[in-house]
Amino acid sequence: MRAAVTRSGRLEVVGVEDPEPGSGHVLVRPLSAGICGSDLHALADFSNFTGLMERVGAPSLDPAADTVFGHDFCAEILEHGPDTAGTLPTGTRVCSVPIIIGPGGVEQIGYSNRYPGALAERMVLQEALLLPVPDSLETNTAALTEPLAVGEHAVGLADLQPGRPCLVVGCGPVGLAVIAALKGRHHGPVLAADFSPARRRLAEAFGADEVIDPAVSSPHDRWASFGVPMTIMERAGAAMMGVELKDPVIFEAVGVPGMLQAIIEAAPPRSRIVVVGVCMHPDSIEPFFAVTKEMEFRFSFGYTPAEYAATLERLAQGMPGAEALVTDAVGLDGAPGAFETLRTPGEHGKILITPQT
Amino acid sequence: MRAAVTRSGRLEVVGVEDPEPGSGHVLVRPLSAGICGSDLHALADFSNFTGLMERVGAPSLDPAADTVFGHDFCAEILEHGPDTAGTLPTGTRVCSVPIIIGPGGVEQIGYSNRYPGALAERMVLQEALLLPVPDSLETNTAALTEPLAVGEHAVGLADLQPGRPCLVVGCGPVGLAVIAALKGRHHGPVLAADFSPARRRLAEAFGADEVIDPAVSSPHDRWASFGVPMTIMERAGAAMMGVELKDPVIFEAVGVPGMLQAIIEAAPPRSRIVVVGVCMHPDSIEPFFAVTKEMEFRFSFGYTPAEYAATLERLAQGMPGAEALVTDAVGLDGAPGAFETLRTPGEHGKILITPQT
Repeated sequence: MRAAVTRSGRLEVVGVEDPEPGSGHVLVRPLSAGICGSDLHALADFSNFTGLMERVGAPSLDPAADTVFGHDFCAEILEHGPDTAGTLPTGTRVCSVPIIIGPGGVEQIGYSNRYPGALAERMVLQEALLLPVPDSLETNTAALTEPLAVGEHAVGLADLQPGRPCLVVGCGPVGLAVIAALKGRHHGPVLAADFSPARRRLAEAFGADEVIDPAVSSPHDRWASFGVPMTIMERAGAAMMGVELKDPVIFEAVGVPGMLQAIIEAAPPRSRIVVVGVCMHPDSIEPFFAVTKEMEFRFSFGYTPAEYAATLERLAQGMPGAEALVTDAVGLDGAPGAFETLRTPGEHGKILITPQT
Repeated sequence: MRAAVTRSGRLEVVGVEDPEPGSGHVLVRPLSAGICGSDLHALADFSNFTGLMERVGAPSLDPAADTVFGHDFCAEILEHGPDTAGTLPTGTRVCSVPIIIGPGGVEQIGYSNRYPGALAERMVLQEALLLPVPDSLETNTAALTEPLAVGEHAVGLADLQPGRPCLVVGCGPVGLAVIAALKGRHHGPVLAADFSPARRRLAEAFGADEVIDPAVSSPHDRWASFGVPMTIMERAGAAMMGVELKDPVIFEAVGVPGMLQAIIEAAPPRSRIVVVGVCMHPDSIEPFFAVTKEMEFRFSFGYTPAEYAATLERLAQGMPGAEALVTDAVGLDGAPGAFETLRTPGEHGKILITPQT
């Protein structure tokens, strides 16, 4: 089969062996696959990425061996492997959390030397994890389930009380996923900040109540209008007066060094910061400011199978903005160019890869 | 009066003007005063400290002007100033949160150019904030109210569910305060780690269930014995099997660069880290590990007046270990030497300054 292969730290479209469905697996053909921010970070410095994966105890990923990315996808069942129930017939469109159980234990589809991800003509999935895609849902929209589930999880982890004002910093796919999950649960007001006009438009389409260009004004200038005290002293005074305090919740959805300290310095005291951007490099903070403001950081990662399923369901019911998020779709041969484009996304949301075209 | 004055970044015992009680103030004579870790950090690099205070919007502290430290103390009322009620008679021993309202607004006693702290023969306090010290409580023990209230606050902020295993990293006064507050609320098991044998003995006296010398073994080696999964995969597996998970709560009570990353790397997934040590320098972390382990950081600062009062009450009822915490008491002339000794505390807990001797 043909696949976009990461080989010696470079992405190239080449012929590789078809994967074989093992016990409990199904063979599928990926119809539509996303490129995740983690994929971009990983390709930009593959040995750093594999080193980090090893240090967190994730199943080992050999930088010298081939890897096929693609952990967010919609696929179609081709063939049932051994020890399967066959409940979903051949031809069914499916989504799945990108996990598979192989002879060496659990592996992450898309970050495995053994199981190719969806940037390929064929892949294998775990039958028990398959979710059928409702007929009404477009294939390219269904492929957004995975990144949108990341937002669902982050908002769950935020454990929001009603009325707490929210700010989403960064309106790439993860930030938009957070906006979708916040609005889906009727939280807010939801502010959203991004330097890119296209991403600000997407944030509006996803339902953000107010979008901010940080080049024009700091999003933190907006807190006062929601009655949020900006200093420790002001907050202590308001608390003594019996004012009901609605401390902000800030979602960091950029994931590059410097973002945390920028928030620590500018955000109000007692802000809860949910870190959903995955920063893969060391970062510097000044704890003194986090201490004196009594900030709280909750680092969010992935999602549960239940959150993934709920996201697919929500997409099927119609999620404002979701279709606009897909700004391009290209065949396998377009994958290296798409990675290149997304390194400086400019006008892009998601560029999907359609490996059968 | 004589006072231990921080002048041009050096501590010296000199004569200075007596403070004048303003509206709502009382004049007191400090009987016993502690040296806080913040005082040590501040003296070690005073311009860094004043710069940080300015950046957090605390009342400005001029590094070129005199400052008298001492925000944890027990004092005796000498004289009531104008506009006071005089409810507590002259001669009453009192404690107080180190806050005073002057013509320029709220100031922090001990970090103010206008209001000297307790390392002096006289100081002024806000009458409305005074708490009488019960007769049964020794003056030197009452002077521990402030640092012990820091532990009370941190444990409140930790919002512990019963049975979550706790680790206190660093058994200086702040770490011991955390142990006292945990044991006072019957939380635990409480592990405590410190390189100093004396501080480990104090941790035991405060009621820690197990003390660990990190030079001999990592405290994180102990989690498994409490059924805490050490990897994301293990935790996910346990959750799927319906195991009731008791994620650790770790109190960081050292406050020097590198502590956060050491915990991020070694602690189990889903650990809640309550940061109660005040690190006054930039620090480096690797967010990737905090993300993939879904860690949570709660930065704790100070205490409320209610927590301060509750701590004084708890001390009066008898707190195991509290008296052992005071390892020396010296007069004002001994203050510079005490600061020097506490920079490498070795065998010391608190060295108290008794300014009237």
